[in-house]
Amino acid sequence: MDSPVALIPQLAAHIIAAGGKRLRPLLTLAAARLCGHEGERHILLASCVEFIHTATLLHDDVVDESALRRGQASANALFGNKPSVLVGDFLFARAFQLMIEDGDVEAMRILSEASATIAEGEVLQLMIQNDLAATEAQYFAMIEGKTAALFAAASELGGVVGQRPPAECAALREYGGALGIAFQLIDDALDYAADEKALGKTVGDDFREGKITLPVMLAFVRGDAAEQAFWRRTIEAREQEEADLVQAQALMARHGSVAETVARAESYGDRARAALEIFPDSQARRALLGIVDFCIARAR
Amino acid sequence: MDSPVALIPQLAAHIIAAGGKRLRPLLTLAAARLCGHEGERHILLASCVEFIHTATLLHDDVVDESALRRGQASANALFGNKPSVLVGDFLFARAFQLMIEDGDVEAMRILSEASATIAEGEVLQLMIQNDLAATEAQYFAMIEGKTAALFAAASELGGVVGQRPPAECAALREYGGALGIAFQLIDDALDYAADEKALGKTVGDDFREGKITLPVMLAFVRGDAAEQAFWRRTIEAREQEEADLVQAQALMARHGSVAETVARAESYGDRARAALEIFPDSQARRALLGIVDFCIARAR
Repeated sequence: MDSPVALIPQLAAHIIAAGGKRLRPLLTLAAARLCGHEGERHILLASCVEFIHTATLLHDDVVDESALRRGQASANALFGNKPSVLVGDFLFARAFQLMIEDGDVEAMRILSEASATIAEGEVLQLMIQNDLAATEAQYFAMIEGKTAALFAAASELGGVVGQRPPAECAALREYGGALGIAFQLIDDALDYAADEKALGKTVGDDFREGKITLPVMLAFVRGDAAEQAFWRRTIEAREQEEADLVQAQALMARHGSVAETVARAESYGDRARAALEIFPDSQARRALLGIVDFCIARAR
Repeated sequence: MDSPVALIPQLAAHIIAAGGKRLRPLLTLAAARLCGHEGERHILLASCVEFIHTATLLHDDVVDESALRRGQASANALFGNKPSVLVGDFLFARAFQLMIEDGDVEAMRILSEASATIAEGEVLQLMIQNDLAATEAQYFAMIEGKTAALFAAASELGGVVGQRPPAECAALREYGGALGIAFQLIDDALDYAADEKALGKTVGDDFREGKITLPVMLAFVRGDAAEQAFWRRTIEAREQEEADLVQAQALMARHGSVAETVARAESYGDRARAALEIFPDSQARRALLGIVDFCIARAR
């Protein structure tokens, strides 16, 4: 992330200091070990994954006008939107420089495809924002793009770097994709359930932005006429008052929509675990299984 | 630029319909022919160049809050900032998918390095914006990054696809880099000189944004105390009144700062022409020389 242009390392230092779970590069590192990779190429590829993720976070925060990221002031709040857009572009370009340095065309193919799919998922999110007529299929297409694509790519890279046969690479991709959906479902559930400290992001952000997430969709379709009017006013018209978030949480509790979102996440977690069954037991496999538990446990 | 996510082809269609000179891909096409390339790979690489350029335009317009691009409503003005950021990301990712499909690692290296350098140049521009203490060296570093890097890469790609020796690739890179600086100098001169119709962008944009460009820098250092106070108020403090643009143009005319900017561009144009001297005369070489004339002639 170094550059002679001082603002780039300054903003980068802020991002690094803000922490984060580093889940995606961890997937690459653990999957590479699972696949018997003994070298250090997986470190470079894991860095590419995290660079791409960081670039998308910088741009997301601009798009969402978020004030907080990982419990700290977001880069756009601190440095402004302009450096966030441009440093995001820089990190994205650096990710491609790194993977070209590595030289594996299959890894490049996986990461460039994931990058395009992430952008498509983000645009889809924008298109169905504030639209309660959005379907569950659209919601899942969106989170597959914006979240699961990079989880899938990060995991598959472990198989590529370990030079494993296609079936094992596909299993890792399946694991990462299912994990990514579980992760996003939990994230969407937490926005209505958790307290700010535990989550490391502003609670109710999704609600205030009128984001269409599964908890909202389930509460809307199960609600009576008065409840649907509440959702239309708050999510579609975005006319919100102080007490509306609490009311939204109460309606979700009544219809069990947060609980069902978590249950669906658990089902995707099971799918992720099942995908690893073709691999024999190892420390790396236990680590990958542990990541599934960790992602789901955030909601408990 | 196709995608199942409808907003992406919609925004892409707007960009294509808005026209543009397509100068950068033209460099790749003509340089490839100059280098004896007979196939069609140069078309794919030229597309990568234009995709990267389009992505940076989309992000630039967000960063600059521009209302016009190529004489039409800019994408951010028409669709909003959010789709412009995200579709820019999509196009950038698609460019990398295309070049990976081509499979030439040297081409990938050139384009990924150019992409990182463009972002650095854009961040540098942000850092010295509104700062009359910026040096000419910083200005040239900025335009080398934000403009010349892609002109250089686009031209060098012709040598790569034509499998020419390093000296010829370097000559094409030198040509493109010098041309890019000439192009940007003319662009910066035109912002204070041309009428909106001819330029295809809002005249005085740079002035209103307090952008540090060579015409401003030259007028500032050559100005007396009262003139310097004018520049500090309008460019640094950005306190501008209706008549200030006309006054800025008058001060520039007094000190010949637009004319000198054009003269410097002509000198870079000469450098670009000289770089092509190692190639024998051909239709492609005449085309590349013609592009230099065209870029400079915009200011006449």
